[in-house]
Amino acid sequence: MRGDVYAANCPTRKLLDRIADKWSVLILLLLSGEAMRFNALKRRVEGVSQKMLSQTLRSLERDGLVTRSVIATVPVTVTYAITPLGSGLIGSLRSMIDWAETHMGEVTAAQRTYDDALN
Amino acid sequence: MRGDVYAANCPTRKLLDRIADKWSVLILLLLSGEAMRFNALKRRVEGVSQKMLSQTLRSLERDGLVTRSVIATVPVTVTYAITPLGSGLIGSLRSMIDWAETHMGEVTAAQRTYDDALN
Repeated sequence: MRGDVYAANCPTRKLLDRIADKWSVLILLLLSGEAMRFNALKRRVEGVSQKMLSQTLRSLERDGLVTRSVIATVPVTVTYAITPLGSGLIGSLRSMIDWAETHMGEVTAAQRTYDDALN
Repeated sequence: MRGDVYAANCPTRKLLDRIADKWSVLILLLLSGEAMRFNALKRRVEGVSQKMLSQTLRSLERDGLVTRSVIATVPVTVTYAITPLGSGLIGSLRSMIDWAETHMGEVTAAQRTYDDALN
């Protein structure tokens, strides 16, 4: 069963909708380096709201890509780590970011041409 | 200059925000197969609204990933095609989808475990 990523109700499409998401990509890449606490993630992923970060982490945890560990300190320490399943996705995400970093100049040039044509 | 994808105002982060997006991914993958008209894209990418599709195509065009050709038929024919720059991104996107298709079973099992633990 390969699924059809273009079909709105295909489970594979729903999974793609969750991983082809800027917050998921940034969180998974950070966690691929080291386990991190919620607040450390929040500081590192600039622009993410508290609510969006919790929601994305919960969704990644439910999909089995991230684990959430609670350590009974006072106050409790909550740490997130990537799972082996999640690690398998890192290569693709990393190559998407490499592409963005490598081709940023061409993209900026294209934007300039596009904007000039409008004026 | 490598940029910092975690910094909210870095151009590379803004580019990632646009490509790590379910609609961009699906549109680029479809166009990597063949040039397509707006309505054909709309039919193929289930669940996308007219507005979201126009907006995403305009953004991909501005970034130089897609071209828009207008042919003076009655009514005019508007066709979208992927550029060589956009084609360079396809490998990463394709491998993300391959991952989703291959690991869907593990993800579904993880979801079941997660949901059972809540009940």
